[in-house]
Amino acid sequence: MVTVKNAVIGNGSLTVIAGPCAVESREQLLAAAHRVRQAGAAILRGGAYKPRTSPYSFQGLEAEGLKLLAEASAQTGLATVTEVVDEASLELALEYVDMVQVGARNMQNFHLLRRVGRSGKPVILKRGFSATIEEWLMAAEYIVSEGNEKVVLCERGIRTFEKATRNTLDLSAVPVVKRLSHLPVIVDPSHATGDRSLVAPMARAAVAAGADGLLIEVHPEPCKALCDGPQSLPPDEFDALMEELKTVAAAVKRFVREEVLYA
Amino acid sequence: MVTVKNAVIGNGSLTVIAGPCAVESREQLLAAAHRVRQAGAAILRGGAYKPRTSPYSFQGLEAEGLKLLAEASAQTGLATVTEVVDEASLELALEYVDMVQVGARNMQNFHLLRRVGRSGKPVILKRGFSATIEEWLMAAEYIVSEGNEKVVLCERGIRTFEKATRNTLDLSAVPVVKRLSHLPVIVDPSHATGDRSLVAPMARAAVAAGADGLLIEVHPEPCKALCDGPQSLPPDEFDALMEELKTVAAAVKRFVREEVLYA
Amino acid sequence: MVTVKNAVIGNGSLTVIAGPCAVESREQLLAAAHRVRQAGAAILRGGAYKPRTSPYSFQGLEAEGLKLLAEASAQTGLATVTEVVDEASLELALEYVDMVQVGARNMQNFHLLRRVGRSGKPVILKRGFSATIEEWLMAAEYIVSEGNEKVVLCERGIRTFEKATRNTLDLSAVPVVKRLSHLPVIVDPSHATGDRSLVAPMARAAVAAGADGLLIEVHPEPCKALCDGPQSLPPDEFDALMEELKTVAAAVKRFVREEVLYA
Amino acid sequence: MVTVKNAVIGNGSLTVIAGPCAVESREQLLAAAHRVRQAGAAILRGGAYKPRTSPYSFQGLEAEGLKLLAEASAQTGLATVTEVVDEASLELALEYVDMVQVGARNMQNFHLLRRVGRSGKPVILKRGFSATIEEWLMAAEYIVSEGNEKVVLCERGIRTFEKATRNTLDLSAVPVVKRLSHLPVIVDPSHATGDRSLVAPMARAAVAAGADGLLIEVHPEPCKALCDGPQSLPPDEFDALMEELKTVAAAVKRFVREEVLYA
Repeated sequence: MVTVKNAVIGNGSLTVIAGPCAVESREQLLAAAHRVRQAGAAILRGGAYKPRTSPYSFQGLEAEGLKLLAEASAQTGLATVTEVVDEASLELALEYVDMVQVGARNMQNFHLLRRVGRSGKPVILKRGFSATIEEWLMAAEYIVSEGNEKVVLCERGIRTFEKATRNTLDLSAVPVVKRLSHLPVIVDPSHATGDRSLVAPMARAAVAAGADGLLIEVHPEPCKALCDGPQSLPPDEFDALMEELKTVAAAVKRFVREEVLYA
Repeated sequence: MVTVKNAVIGNGSLTVIAGPCAVESREQLLAAAHRVRQAGAAILRGGAYKPRTSPYSFQGLEAEGLKLLAEASAQTGLATVTEVVDEASLELALEYVDMVQVGARNMQNFHLLRRVGRSGKPVILKRGFSATIEEWLMAAEYIVSEGNEKVVLCERGIRTFEKATRNTLDLSAVPVVKRLSHLPVIVDPSHATGDRSLVAPMARAAVAAGADGLLIEVHPEPCKALCDGPQSLPPDEFDALMEELKTVAAAVKRFVREEVLYA
Repeated sequence: MVTVKNAVIGNGSLTVIAGPCAVESREQLLAAAHRVRQAGAAILRGGAYKPRTSPYSFQGLEAEGLKLLAEASAQTGLATVTEVVDEASLELALEYVDMVQVGARNMQNFHLLRRVGRSGKPVILKRGFSATIEEWLMAAEYIVSEGNEKVVLCERGIRTFEKATRNTLDLSAVPVVKRLSHLPVIVDPSHATGDRSLVAPMARAAVAAGADGLLIEVHPEPCKALCDGPQSLPPDEFDALMEELKTVAAAVKRFVREEVLYA
Repeated sequence: MVTVKNAVIGNGSLTVIAGPCAVESREQLLAAAHRVRQAGAAILRGGAYKPRTSPYSFQGLEAEGLKLLAEASAQTGLATVTEVVDEASLELALEYVDMVQVGARNMQNFHLLRRVGRSGKPVILKRGFSATIEEWLMAAEYIVSEGNEKVVLCERGIRTFEKATRNTLDLSAVPVVKRLSHLPVIVDPSHATGDRSLVAPMARAAVAAGADGLLIEVHPEPCKALCDGPQSLPPDEFDALMEELKTVAAAVKRFVREEVLYA
């Protein structure tokens, strides 16, 4: 069970973390924050440092993005999470957000893992896209062994030969992790599928498989997104998805927490 | 929508197909048949011809197994399905069962597909464990192009580097197939995971992802099974799973049909 | 060691099997046959039955193709090999060619394997594109257990996430098979890469890794090929490759046999 | 073409980089260094910082290991290369070795890549074990875009379903990279196969495929190695392999450089 400000992951509830892939502007982030809060998300996500395959792609607003996350949090009461990519971005993130994320590409960046471990900050550890579950748990151990047990594991798809989706979401990882570890496990259907129309069915499936939470990309105007537009949900679709998720969560005896948290 | 005797797949209900991996004896099959019928399964599965990696493994009861399936059907009213592996087994199966199955290893056995197409019999076409969704749909086209539209697609896991499960169940295939094809799609969590304890969470997830049905291995005494014991559910666990599935199905507006069918 | 008419595979020589993916016409096949014989190939390949992903693609000349292979053999003295896809094509192939091939898609078509086993005909067993080496050897066992030891294994690439090549040629399979089995092992760089420009380097590499032979697509006019044109070598490039291969083969103490065979 | 002290990679020669996986002691490293130099290696490798899957495995001698590499270089005249895992290890390595290596796990640690780029030091960039060739080239671009063109790419195996080898060595990557980039490309058969008996055939194959060099693990006493013993060659086997490689290299018109370099 990991507590992040006023949100909890792993206590039997379904915790939804939502927001844009990248923080692009004040307007974009605040619009997203208010909408995901209204819909029942418990944590706001937004990338300030974007590790991109090409050095010539948009790399994020960096410090400016972190400040906007802090502002969004102040306005909405939402806890916030952002990806860190190295020691410098981690140092800064520790000041401005409530939780950090180590991305798939850095899952075995052991130096960064140790540093996150020493920070004591709640952390989402994404599974590397070719990591076995065992390696993923060992990567978590790099954080825990430094004294930080606030680790949330996030399945986000693995590489296979299938081309219809960006990656293959390995939902079996959810019950496998639950058998091997006490750490909460959440699922990111947005990055796994790379396709907006697949986010809702895979989000529902993740909940039914037993996930403790979801990480979902929401953008006020996906077609204008600088990053991952094709997989981001517009706010209206996110509202509809949250309604569906509450029903599925109830069917597997989980509850979505917003009523409690923002009472 | 495919009708198999008194069962229907693809009409908005959740159709559960259950039974032992292999027909091993009269006692075993009848015990399984009565239990899965009581629990709400609509179709009885049982292998009479078992394609096995090694030529020295148990290869099935063949004709004797088919006759036992027919007897189990007569006793319980359940429709039956069995795997066919070549022309001879197909000819015989056409006499004794209501539906045939082309297994993952034969997904691109085009000769067999064409012959199944000409038979006009309802058929489950399993996805090859390294087939892309596109190749799977093209394999279905080999059947349909011979005039047989009664094809049900079955996702059963693909090969990846992950070793914690036998294969990686690709549940994204469910919504992807629904977008590309009008054929019903079901999911086999037993073969995909190879692990009894993962069958229930992945079955629930498959329903939440939108599957039209499930194919689940049930054996009266899994520890004595000649084939796939570790992934077969004992009847009590299957009963419990069916109760869970009804709740999840209702949450995504599907219903389990047994009340209607056996009224 | 497998003898096919006047050719031998697995006696320490490098046996090159070459010819078009599909037999398309008398002119095409005879032109290819004469050119590959001159360049030093020991066996002529040509497909008469083409298992294709789509039922609407060109499926081969069937019986007519087999007769053309027999004619090409009579004119050139080359042994011949063709793919069989079911019992009917096998029966016919047994009359017209010197060796049959079971393709990747049929590697676990156990009925066909057994039937090839009973035929006693030399056979190339291609590795399924998602088969482990262990499964491939077990598939060979289906043939050998019927009394036919004339099995030549052929590595042709496996499915991975890499998109730059059609499949990933797993050359490690060559020394692994040599450690586990006494059967000869050859390599098909044409199908594995799907790209003419990669055939020569991968053919050289296969020889250096210890392969007993190569299966190479050669077409008199690749740009007019009905099947696999992009990966077929025109005869001039095949001539040049054969010269290179002789040098590499000599470096690893193998020899290319044409001088002896056609003396 | 990349020059590393008195060695050159990518000038048409075959450059062999050899040494132990990890620097374990002065005796071990010096013994290895003298032997690989005698056998014709051009560069000495040795790990001082070992990124390991588990935080509880041996993590390397760190600064002490770097000093031993410098001493081995002084004694033998060999250039040296070592893996760097973060900014601190890079800073120190820049003082003590001639070339740095970014390992597979850090291939998309973009912060580290940029820092290596700014250092101007020759660098080996290993392919991530699930990276596409395109992503690998983009990762190299992170280094080059900071002004450092001394990048050598190293194929070291990718993740697939095959279990007979640790990873699947993708030798097609060699000609594919040569078509897309001017950067030299070398191959690491030791890590790819994880099996000493497969190192020689895959090293020969890599040379025949056109690799500019090889990275080979050599340990004076593999059975006592703290890391990767099963895949390390003892010095006698390395001697024998070097003789074989000279023959294969000559067959593809490459030459092994030691005569020139240590004249």
